[in-house]
Amino acid sequence: MLSATSASNTGPAFPRPSLPGQACIREVGLRDGLQSLASVMPTAHKLQWIREAYDAGQREIEVGSFVPARLLPQLADTAELVAFAKTLPGLVTSVLVPNLKGAERAIESGADLMLLPLSASHAHSLANLRKTPDEVVEEIARIRAARDTSGSAIRIEVGFSTAFGCTLQGRVEPAEVLRLLQAVLDAGADCVGLADTVGYADPEMVRQLFELALPIAGERLNCGHFHDTRGLGLANVYAALQTGITRFDACLAGIGGCPHAPGASGNVASEDLAYMFASMGIATGIDFDKLMALRAKVAGWLEGETLHGTLWRAGLPRTMRAAAVTV
Amino acid sequence: MLSATSASNTGPAFPRPSLPGQACIREVGLRDGLQSLASVMPTAHKLQWIREAYDAGQREIEVGSFVPARLLPQLADTAELVAFAKTLPGLVTSVLVPNLKGAERAIESGADLMLLPLSASHAHSLANLRKTPDEVVEEIARIRAARDTSGSAIRIEVGFSTAFGCTLQGRVEPAEVLRLLQAVLDAGADCVGLADTVGYADPEMVRQLFELALPIAGERLNCGHFHDTRGLGLANVYAALQTGITRFDACLAGIGGCPHAPGASGNVASEDLAYMFASMGIATGIDFDKLMALRAKVAGWLEGETLHGTLWRAGLPRTMRAAAVTV
Repeated sequence: MLSATSASNTGPAFPRPSLPGQACIREVGLRDGLQSLASVMPTAHKLQWIREAYDAGQREIEVGSFVPARLLPQLADTAELVAFAKTLPGLVTSVLVPNLKGAERAIESGADLMLLPLSASHAHSLANLRKTPDEVVEEIARIRAARDTSGSAIRIEVGFSTAFGCTLQGRVEPAEVLRLLQAVLDAGADCVGLADTVGYADPEMVRQLFELALPIAGERLNCGHFHDTRGLGLANVYAALQTGITRFDACLAGIGGCPHAPGASGNVASEDLAYMFASMGIATGIDFDKLMALRAKVAGWLEGETLHGTLWRAGLPRTMRAAAVTV
Repeated sequence: MLSATSASNTGPAFPRPSLPGQACIREVGLRDGLQSLASVMPTAHKLQWIREAYDAGQREIEVGSFVPARLLPQLADTAELVAFAKTLPGLVTSVLVPNLKGAERAIESGADLMLLPLSASHAHSLANLRKTPDEVVEEIARIRAARDTSGSAIRIEVGFSTAFGCTLQGRVEPAEVLRLLQAVLDAGADCVGLADTVGYADPEMVRQLFELALPIAGERLNCGHFHDTRGLGLANVYAALQTGITRFDACLAGIGGCPHAPGASGNVASEDLAYMFASMGIATGIDFDKLMALRAKVAGWLEGETLHGTLWRAGLPRTMRAAAVTV
């Protein structure tokens, strides 16, 4: 067994003062990944995925989305998945919700966290949610009120999609992201994340937007969501890490993608991200061998789909494999 | 036409104080790339590659290697390639040489720079060059003497292979890299680079080894060479950039690879690196459309070989494409 911690013990003996000691990889393959695929994964497979991701040490999983089943039949079993996930001690179960109606279902489901997407791009917001960004802010305020009224402890996270640019609109002004960020916090979001939905970000854009946003949001800005569409996903994670961000979305086998960029890769691959963190001595609690075994299983279920990620081909470096033998 | 400079003009208006304004991508596909492939590319194709890489703005190309043709028949036409490359004004023509005999051929050829690999891993050094690292240092001193005697202006660069770990030996001590670095400078190397030959490096290892090496070598440490075997190639470039390194090896279409990791990707892809730099506003002088056209041509010549890189699938972001229309 090779945990991130044991691996780091045999890595090069550089001092590592600048990076955090721990990080969290939120598995979003069951939501952001599966919603991009035409095929529908059977609920039994999804339950097994959640179970084995948990056994591999993952402690935050986005299990689905409360959108109408006619729009996303791939995610129609979300309530059942939440119910199962809630039986796993210490697991933070998150679900995506597009609006107040979805939020009410999320509250009812008992999930720990609901993620609301807000597109910083006006054009993308209209295309995706048929609302302007400011109308989404108003919806967030209504969701916050509903949550507070319900007495639920579910947390409200807002994910800023297209924060680094948009395939429809092109450029997205950082000033607009920051304005909406303040509005969303004022409307009652518990936490926020910045997402490069279409793979337009580079490490400097990431560093600088997070550095501009952190003084506004403080610790409530606690998630980075990067797609690897143009090969910069892991570099972008590293840039965000350097600003102090320690929580990242990722999809096993890099599934996901973007309808506006056919053939492009999807989210950063969970296993590649786990490897990068382990190599840098950043603890994630993930058992690498178990995660790779799960990847192989999921790859089998998704036969015919295009998978991504790099590490599964090359395997761990000998320097980290040595740890697996001795630990 | 989209140059790196024009692209950056339409990128997000973040201030970018921390990164260099310019960088150089040395194309090493003709050497590090082709030497890993079983097939031999015809000289006519190589000449066309050099010509079109030059036309796309590349100003440093490693055209081949002066090793015995029986060992690397893929590179047997190196002298002819140097002769052609020397006709292109302002092009820095580099060749790899394994020993004094190769260095003598490099001096004779009229190349601008000869690259000597020195394995920081004792085991890799013996396997690759049948010499210990310290015997290679002695050879470098002999090469320096031969260069000075010849009156040639050819520059001597030492590339530290396996500087971040080795598939044969495993761990490579940073202290050993630094000891050899000082020895190589004392022996008369004009400049040095650090190479992650087998894809074991992570961004923090890169940052820290360069930060340890720069006080020893100063501006003579001016090259980073990263393989993308485990997906961290571009993240590693970004980490090295942050230490002030502005010159990187890369292979068009990410060819290359590692005999010890079958199926693994090779060097960072030149076109992906050019995209990352352009997106970050770092000028490379590369015309992106011409580079991508050349990539497509080389891909045709290498039909049946595994190519890598990400950008060719997704294309440039709309934000950068807009520049192509308006410039």
